Amino acid sequence: MAKNVGILAMEIYFPPTFVQQEALEAHDGASKGKYTIGLGQDGMAFCTEVEDVISMSLTAVTSLLEKYKIDPKQIGRLEVGSETVIDKSKSIKTFLMPIFEERGNTDIEGVDSTNACYGGTAALLNCVNWVESSSWDGRYGLVVCTDSAVYAEGPARPTGGAAAIAMLIGPDAPISFESKFRGSHMSHAYDFYKPNLTSEYPVVDGRLSQTCYLMALDSCYKSFCHKYVRTEVQETVSIFLYDYGSQFSPHVASTFDYRYERLEGKQFSLSDADYFIFHSPYNKLVQKSFARLLFNDFLRNASSVDAIAKEKLGPFSTLTGDESFQSRELEKASQQASKPLYDAKVQPTTLVPKQVGNTYTASLYAAFASLIHNKHSELAGKRVVLFSYGSGLTATMFSLRLHEGRHPFSLSNISTVMHVAGKLESRHEVTLALSVLEIIKYSSTTMQNSKVIPLPAMPLSFGFCCVIQHDQLFTPKKFVETLKLMENRYGAKDFVTSKDSSLLSPGTYYLTEVDSMYRRFYAQKDRACTACENGSATNGH
Amino acid sequence: MAKNVGILAMEIYFPPTFVQQEALEAHDGASKGKYTIGLGQDGMAFCTEVEDVISMSLTAVTSLLEKYKIDPKQIGRLEVGSETVIDKSKSIKTFLMPIFEERGNTDIEGVDSTNACYGGTAALLNCVNWVESSSWDGRYGLVVCTDSAVYAEGPARPTGGAAAIAMLIGPDAPISFESKFRGSHMSHAYDFYKPNLTSEYPVVDGRLSQTCYLMALDSCYKSFCHKYVRTEVQETVSIFLYDYGSQFSPHVASTFDYRYERLEGKQFSLSDADYFIFHSPYNKLVQKSFARLLFNDFLRNASSVDAIAKEKLGPFSTLTGDESFQSRELEKASQQASKPLYDAKVQPTTLVPKQVGNTYTASLYAAFASLIHNKHSELAGKRVVLFSYGSGLTATMFSLRLHEGRHPFSLSNISTVMHVAGKLESRHEVTLALSVLEIIKYSSTTMQNSKVIPLPAMPLSFGFCCVIQHDQLFTPKKFVETLKLMENRYGAKDFVTSKDSSLLSPGTYYLTEVDSMYRRFYAQKDRACTACENGSATNGH
Repeated sequence: MAKNVGILAMEIYFPPTFVQQEALEAHDGASKGKYTIGLGQDGMAFCTEVEDVISMSLTAVTSLLEKYKIDPKQIGRLEVGSETVIDKSKSIKTFLMPIFEERGNTDIEGVDSTNACYGGTAALLNCVNWVESSSWDGRYGLVVCTDSAVYAEGPARPTGGAAAIAMLIGPDAPISFESKFRGSHMSHAYDFYKPNLTSEYPVVDGRLSQTCYLMALDSCYKSFCHKYVRTEVQETVSIFLYDYGSQFSPHVASTFDYRYERLEGKQFSLSDADYFIFHSPYNKLVQKSFARLLFNDFLRNASSVDAIAKEKLGPFSTLTGDESFQSRELEKASQQASKPLYDAKVQPTTLVPKQVGNTYTASLYAAFASLIHNKHSELAGKRVVLFSYGSGLTATMFSLRLHEGRHPFSLSNISTVMHVAGKLESRHEVTLALSVLEIIKYSSTTMQNSKVIPLPAMPLSFGFCCVIQHDQLFTPKKFVETLKLMENRYGAKDFVTSKDSSLLSPGTYYLTEVDSMYRRFYAQKDRACTACENGSATNGH
Repeated sequence: MAKNVGILAMEIYFPPTFVQQEALEAHDGASKGKYTIGLGQDGMAFCTEVEDVISMSLTAVTSLLEKYKIDPKQIGRLEVGSETVIDKSKSIKTFLMPIFEERGNTDIEGVDSTNACYGGTAALLNCVNWVESSSWDGRYGLVVCTDSAVYAEGPARPTGGAAAIAMLIGPDAPISFESKFRGSHMSHAYDFYKPNLTSEYPVVDGRLSQTCYLMALDSCYKSFCHKYVRTEVQETVSIFLYDYGSQFSPHVASTFDYRYERLEGKQFSLSDADYFIFHSPYNKLVQKSFARLLFNDFLRNASSVDAIAKEKLGPFSTLTGDESFQSRELEKASQQASKPLYDAKVQPTTLVPKQVGNTYTASLYAAFASLIHNKHSELAGKRVVLFSYGSGLTATMFSLRLHEGRHPFSLSNISTVMHVAGKLESRHEVTLALSVLEIIKYSSTTMQNSKVIPLPAMPLSFGFCCVIQHDQLFTPKKFVETLKLMENRYGAKDFVTSKDSSLLSPGTYYLTEVDSMYRRFYAQKDRACTACENGSATNGH
């Protein structure tokens, strides 16, 4: 069986168009801090009419293959996780196949996995299992998480976002699975769902969804800890038998496991992992979740938490499960008690989810990308525990072990390729080279808030050019207008888009047309224009 | 790694309501034989307002667990394949979770897999990989394929159907995977898709879909044969090295594989498998598909086909690929040439697909159920090759090896449990015990075509009873009316159904209500009423 199977490489893509949560608060007439402190969010990316889950995943996949120099023929499995339905039958995976068909590779297993925000994790686990199975043919697996999260006007609207993440799967990975440490909780719930087929917006009960999330977290953690204990102990027992000799068969010996564990006290607690990553609908829930894990540790084994935490949590030790989910006091006390650990073990994972928003299936892996971005040089040997949640509901807590790896599949190269800071930064100050005509077009439509900075030296080959720096190009007003347009476009046919790729980086895919048969057409922004990305305009794009 | 992983047990469910294709031909004003000979279909099952893909899968899963005596706690993975979208986010799998939650089991991995009719195969392959992976926890996997295939009025309408199939997955299975023999073909196509989100009906290009299907078949067969040759030869080579001794490392030895194969001529041909099972939108395509495989054999190695086939196919050996897909003459000649082999290797697999119709994700496994039903006593040691196709498109050809197995996981018991003949038969002559009130209700609504046969001895405890025998209860008119009603119900909320379960067998689940929040409610037909099934009415149901 293949060993140390896991994630060899990653790429992340999110739209350059986004809205500041602070500005959205003001626009919505919400109390100051409601989105930024109450939800804990900073920004929210969204797709304009030229981007969707298919274009984003085309971009992420081609970029990954190119940057890690992977021949499309080397891919033996491709799976997509998404809850953004464009077609109820044809998978997003098939929209990605042309990348591989061009190179003569059509023998690629896998389809789309669906259950709310959990589909990406399902695809990832499937792909890892494939590499470990007898049907693995030695090639790489590729997992794509892609979603556009949009909500109807109301309290849930600021919890949107959009992104696609591609992950290459294989053996001897710098990010490998500890497959035996895994707990799932799956249940029938109506916390968030999409039964209105004509609308892209979900039906969501925010309060119920939060409770479902935290109950699933509790259940997964319990199951995770149970499996951790068992596995740790089985190792210990085999040493015991070797030291003293034994006439017991291994089967009989295993009956001692539990007793032995009691003596050793090898229970899992937060100190056994270096980082915890959570599916992030909004950052406040991540804070609550980590606090909840600390409360779990305290209840299970008070000696595993420090004195301050013990003191703060003590008054809540007799609450029933239901009471504990309802108690605001417990919520507050446990967040206070867990603050130092949160800063060390969770905060480094929150950058992209806070800046880009809830990206549904991509959310957990966007958080993971944040960790690699922030800490890549010090991650070797570390254990990371992840909690994936999809409403409806499906949830899994699982464990990864990190190694530096070898180029190009090293943590440092993954960090370089993903270029998280650069991508976030370039949203604020998009540097465009435009022809005069394009400037006029923009000035009259979307750029009221932009600063136009003429360049001192202009190449004149394709017309007069300049560079435009625009902060907050997308005001809340523009965001709301875009969502209105997208409401009409959802499920529609027979239209062409503006084909305006000016805000997109070279190599980005974008939607150009949906014909009268609902067939979708995409173009890729000219790669010859790479120089534009660096501000040194060479032609009229 | 777990060995001989595959299907341990199966259950099939299809609605008792169906229409005869012959009657539908007449109703539609189609030329006689258009559906029965042209498509090769006999009957078509369909869901009334009280059944859907969720109720059918609830029925199939509970029936499987009960009949094979599987404790719900023994299930560690549950996956659903379906292309019938009721909710765009919440998986069908979560609707099945109450069966397991009731028994305290929520730690069950897996979600829904989607790409047209291929989702069931994707779920099955995922589940097998899980059992072979390091994350397998020793429990069973459970795969469910469930679909309701309905089409707008027009030429595709007679190619509908409805069914759910549940399959239990584990090691040492009577139906085990030969995982190394597998060829896939995945591509971007618009042959059949569901972009109109407001309609349950697909957009379908029948001609294109057939060509896509056959081209994918060609490609999969080529890939399958290639892998078969390589694998067979690797075994042969290792014997060679053992006999003569060798200083080569196994790695170096493997470079001889291909040459050795040439000498041996160990190519795959139709004679290397005992049965071939195809995804069956309609039987005529299955006939064409098998004929196409024979033509492939002929082109690759003419000596593998018999003299008559050689003579019939000879004139077409110089056609290009495209020409061969267009040639009616080739289609006819290859079907004639393959007829004897078809009768032996394919015909035993066609019963349910012909009688129940296209059941999308369940179709391939409904064909497999037919084989087990027809041949279970003589299947031990046989190899079965299956071709799964989902428009859009995704396709895989794979190989299963059959063993008798041990009770309850034996081929004979699987055949007994599935009770295919009984289920088909009971559709024609549903025997109901009804109270007087119910008789009056039925007489005035749906039973105009039924014969009412009073029973000589009536138990009077719950009212006057009789048994009603109704052939062809569902006339084409009734079928069309039902589809009209379902068009309005699709995506709707806030309604209650008739809750009429009179036609359903005891233990069958049915839809009772969709509330104002789109939440769906189901009931299970009283199991206490089992006696009714045998005609010995004991109460007023």
